[in-house]
Amino acid sequence: MKNQPYLRIKFKAPQPGKKHTCPEIVQNIKEQILRHRLSGLRLPPIRFLAHQLNVSKTTIQKAYDELISQGLVESKPRLGLYITPAQKEVQIPSVTKAAFLATDQGPAYLNYHAPPSPKTINLSSDLINPDLLPLQKISQCFRAALANPDLTSKYYVQGYPPLRKEIAERLQKYGINAHPDNIVITIGSQQAISIIFRSLTGATIATENPTYYAAQRLFKINKNKIIGLPLDPFQEIQMDLWAELIQKYQPQALYLIPNFQNPTGHSYSSSELQQILLLSKKFNLGLIEDDWGSDMLSFSEFKPSLRAIGGENVFYLNTFTSKLLPSLRIGYVLASTKNIPSLLYTKSASCLAASSIDEIALYEFLYRGYYDAHLTKLQQALDKRYKFCLKILRERMPANIKWTLPGGGPMLWLEVPRHISLEKVSSKLQKQNIYIDLNQECFAGPPNLHGFPIGYAYNSLENLQKGLEALALALTN
Amino acid sequence: MKNQPYLRIKFKAPQPGKKHTCPEIVQNIKEQILRHRLSGLRLPPIRFLAHQLNVSKTTIQKAYDELISQGLVESKPRLGLYITPAQKEVQIPSVTKAAFLATDQGPAYLNYHAPPSPKTINLSSDLINPDLLPLQKISQCFRAALANPDLTSKYYVQGYPPLRKEIAERLQKYGINAHPDNIVITIGSQQAISIIFRSLTGATIATENPTYYAAQRLFKINKNKIIGLPLDPFQEIQMDLWAELIQKYQPQALYLIPNFQNPTGHSYSSSELQQILLLSKKFNLGLIEDDWGSDMLSFSEFKPSLRAIGGENVFYLNTFTSKLLPSLRIGYVLASTKNIPSLLYTKSASCLAASSIDEIALYEFLYRGYYDAHLTKLQQALDKRYKFCLKILRERMPANIKWTLPGGGPMLWLEVPRHISLEKVSSKLQKQNIYIDLNQECFAGPPNLHGFPIGYAYNSLENLQKGLEALALALTN
Repeated sequence: MKNQPYLRIKFKAPQPGKKHTCPEIVQNIKEQILRHRLSGLRLPPIRFLAHQLNVSKTTIQKAYDELISQGLVESKPRLGLYITPAQKEVQIPSVTKAAFLATDQGPAYLNYHAPPSPKTINLSSDLINPDLLPLQKISQCFRAALANPDLTSKYYVQGYPPLRKEIAERLQKYGINAHPDNIVITIGSQQAISIIFRSLTGATIATENPTYYAAQRLFKINKNKIIGLPLDPFQEIQMDLWAELIQKYQPQALYLIPNFQNPTGHSYSSSELQQILLLSKKFNLGLIEDDWGSDMLSFSEFKPSLRAIGGENVFYLNTFTSKLLPSLRIGYVLASTKNIPSLLYTKSASCLAASSIDEIALYEFLYRGYYDAHLTKLQQALDKRYKFCLKILRERMPANIKWTLPGGGPMLWLEVPRHISLEKVSSKLQKQNIYIDLNQECFAGPPNLHGFPIGYAYNSLENLQKGLEALALALTN
Repeated sequence: MKNQPYLRIKFKAPQPGKKHTCPEIVQNIKEQILRHRLSGLRLPPIRFLAHQLNVSKTTIQKAYDELISQGLVESKPRLGLYITPAQKEVQIPSVTKAAFLATDQGPAYLNYHAPPSPKTINLSSDLINPDLLPLQKISQCFRAALANPDLTSKYYVQGYPPLRKEIAERLQKYGINAHPDNIVITIGSQQAISIIFRSLTGATIATENPTYYAAQRLFKINKNKIIGLPLDPFQEIQMDLWAELIQKYQPQALYLIPNFQNPTGHSYSSSELQQILLLSKKFNLGLIEDDWGSDMLSFSEFKPSLRAIGGENVFYLNTFTSKLLPSLRIGYVLASTKNIPSLLYTKSASCLAASSIDEIALYEFLYRGYYDAHLTKLQQALDKRYKFCLKILRERMPANIKWTLPGGGPMLWLEVPRHISLEKVSSKLQKQNIYIDLNQECFAGPPNLHGFPIGYAYNSLENLQKGLEALALALTN
């Protein structure tokens, strides 16, 4: 009973330059009790009211005594002062339940790629093996960040300025003309596409089909009309068909993942990027380039991005999350000067700012040169894994199975003849604690591919081999 | 020249179980050159292509020799192999500029509360003085978090489960019936309101007038119709007027900040909260309670929240940011089971997940009992500052200035007679490097108050005194 809530009391301001007098306090409490017919509630402890009003405890004690003598308040031994119950008709509506507000007017909730249990071999993971992550160096950088005086007095809507400077310098090295003022730090690349597309609610958007499931999810929430441009990772892109679809449906923007496209693992050739720029010019099509993948590919510094050859109008976005640590969710968008204000406005409304501890730690990581050193090692490790994966596939897979040759990086696409049920293969594998990702959210309409990604970055080589061998068996029978 | 981009080449899959043959490679490159009339581009280094296709360097060398002998490729000394320029009419459109995509269809960008320079005395800051922040303990918790194996293999859409458990236990102590499954961790409280209101695009929303500027910003982006319920921090709330407005405009939801309302510093009395629940029931009005402030008030554990007395339908949100570190942006929303799926769907589309390093560090902070210990010290320090601020105000302010008596916490509201120009006062102060926040974004329509918040949490006592004395002078003349 001692911890029972007490009455909140609001006090009118005292006379200017004065403290509340005892009668003012009594009058105030009395009015509240009578006007709102409160009863059964406890009065605040004397020390609290004395503190709130900055008057002496004696003043409050006198006020309470007066209220008791007026019969408005009664003392319960060892419990405190309670407002005297009024006539029986007075009830405090403290159990009135608030009305229910439905927030499920968006699309039905779909299960996430429920991460398989740690003992499962996840053949479709796009994560990196923990042993390849530079955790110790990241820890060093966090220690430096936590000693940084910038932590305690500010947050950064656009992102920590020295981090934006480091990123701009990196991009310059890749042939991208970037200024720190044109960079907005985001929570992974997902927030980058979220703030770009926020002002395109209801618009028609073109994108590869299939594409990244979380982008599809965003388009659904934004009530976009999606024009799926068919992507077959075993073929060159059918640019004529793409042009036809774009001409017919007149989308405002095209969202692309030119390197290790999710989920197909497909990477664009230079000529394809050039043709896309021609489409952009011809059909007044805004371009959003999601470049999460290039940093994982050896020699990628020689491969010009869409942003490098198409100029500042291309929205370029990238993330450090997938290369450094799944839990360090920092990405960015590079945009034209004209687009920055609306991106900042939208970001501030969606989260004010990201965690600047993480941003400062990442700044340290880039500034000290750790990132380039890490990428070199990571690319070598992924190359080794890619070769290993190809070797197993060549040795084990039946003749009717085909796969793409991305040349390194984290993943490839494995395509299976239509007569083989992917669900059956998946459930066979599940019994052996092996997981393949058949998420259909990535397709706009009926699936135009019949397969799934093979990620060779995440598992130990031993588990990768075990998983692929089991997969080969499941596809054979 | 050495770093000039090279051609991206896409290869058809080889025969099943085989590697690419030299003729296949030649044919592939030849097709790309001829089909797309590429010229002037460099061929990839031999080692790269050998790596991509997992064939020997000799195979690639032979393929390149063949291309040279076919006249398709020429060797430039010390530069590498280049595609022979075709007839003059062939041009690589590498400088085609992408189309511009406008993202500024939302409201015009408004300047942020541009944080005043470090030398400025910010009288309106809602931040906490860095000396009161538990930075050393936070650092300890980050060190523990960086050693946590959960970091490297996962991210958490709903938020790190042990953190949600700690928060649920805290809420239980405050009389709120909370389960970890009903909590979604967010990036500050701003993301909490952002994901709640995401599915209420275009809806009519009631809120205090004035209210938090960043919430107003969100409502503008969401194209909400805003019903401003007048809030005068010197009066009891005019519940009859509120009821009238709600009946007239039938808003779907009411967004409230019941403790240290931003910007007025106003806190609701118990009877006001009860009356709001009655309005909710009568008008089928969803309630969103933004409780950022209560943790800063002494004895607040005795004050029941709207969620405590109104039950699970009330969306309850809170943040650790304002109490711990401006750069540790972690908040949460507690919602009914029926609302969780849509909140998760929206959160995953907006950022996938927040930084789990920060979440794990905060979990440690709560689990070790640091937070409760910190709040006790913080509340005492804020109480001291509140008293100090009142003392200066009483001693210095002219008789026509009034201020609220919130009883502690971070801020109060100072109201000025209409005939005094706030802009003139502000510019007088600016010359002395003193800042007051006259941001008008918080008002729905013309301002119903003529004043500004005084934050006594941020400045040193010396600077607070200096700032208030200068303010009193500026208001006097």
